[in-house]
Amino acid sequence: MEIIFKPIGIIYSPFTSLKEMPIQPTSDSSAPGRIEIQPEFVEGLKDLEGFSHIYLLYHFHQGGSAKLTVTPFLDKEPRGIFATRAPRRPNPIGLSLVKLTSIKGNLVYVDDIDILNGTPLIDIKPYIPEFENAQDVQIGWLDKSKGKVKNKKSDSRFLGEL
Amino acid sequence: MEIIFKPIGIIYSPFTSLKEMPIQPTSDSSAPGRIEIQPEFVEGLKDLEGFSHIYLLYHFHQGGSAKLTVTPFLDKEPRGIFATRAPRRPNPIGLSLVKLTSIKGNLVYVDDIDILNGTPLIDIKPYIPEFENAQDVQIGWLDKSKGKVKNKKSDSRFLGEL
Repeated sequence: MEIIFKPIGIIYSPFTSLKEMPIQPTSDSSAPGRIEIQPEFVEGLKDLEGFSHIYLLYHFHQGGSAKLTVTPFLDKEPRGIFATRAPRRPNPIGLSLVKLTSIKGNLVYVDDIDILNGTPLIDIKPYIPEFENAQDVQIGWLDKSKGKVKNKKSDSRFLGEL
Repeated sequence: MEIIFKPIGIIYSPFTSLKEMPIQPTSDSSAPGRIEIQPEFVEGLKDLEGFSHIYLLYHFHQGGSAKLTVTPFLDKEPRGIFATRAPRRPNPIGLSLVKLTSIKGNLVYVDDIDILNGTPLIDIKPYIPEFENAQDVQIGWLDKSKGKVKNKKSDSRFLGEL
C-alpha cells in the first residue's frame, strides 16, 4: 500500500547546504524563512494568521536513503531512527514547530526555522497547546544532552551517499 | 512531483467509527491504543522507550476528499483547512502527541490517543520539549473555544461522501 502526497508549496530559507544548518528551530542559528504556497491552496490559509506558531510537515528531500539506526548530532552512540529526529527515516518526513510572522497572498513568512532551502512542504497545522498537552516529560537518551541543542549545528552525516 | 510513503505499521484503538471519537488526545474520552510496527522496522524502535511522549504521524485514510475550508468541531464558521486540524486536507496526514506506555517487540503501547482503529502509521518521532519551544502562543479563532476540547466528540462531518 502506498500513500501519495504532493507538495503544497516550497520552503525557502538561508540554509542552502546540510552543513552548518541549525539542527532544530530552537537553535541560536535558526532563521527567518518564506513559504510559497501553490496558488490553488491559498484559500486553505484563511484564518491561519491568528496563530502565533505552526507545525510545518515537509519532505526530507535530501536526506539520503533510510537507515534504522543513526548516530544523532547530539550523541555518539547509534540510536533507533524513531528515537531521533534525524532525516534518514523510512518515510522521510520532517516536523518543525515555527513562529508565524505574517501571510501575504500565497507567501507565508515564518521565523525560527531549521529547514533546508527548497524543501517541499506537505502540510501546515496550527499549534494548539490544549491539544499538545504533555506533562511529566521524559526524553530518554537525550537527557544528558539537555541544553546543547542551541549551539549544535548540522554536518554532512545525513547526506546519504554524497 | 509526488512523494510516496509506505505505512510502517497500523494503529489499533477502541474507535471504530468517526462518530463519537474524541477530537484530540487531550480529550476526556481519549483511550489507550496499540501500534503494530511492521517487523522490518522494529530495529528503528531502539531507545524509544526512554521517551514518555511521542508524535504519531499517520494517514487520514477515511477522511474523505480534500476541502480548502471546513467548519471545525469547535466552531460554527468555515475556516481555512490549514488553520484547523481537520482530516480533509490536501495531503491527509494526521499528527497526534500521545503518551508512550511500553514497547514489546513490534508492539508499541500508547495512551491518550484520538485515532481511528486501523489507521496506517507513517512515522514516529520523540517529543522533545527543548525542540518544541513555543512561547507567547496565540491560537486565533480557537481562542473562544478554549476549554471545550475535553468534552467535544467527533461526528460524521469529515466522512467525505458517506
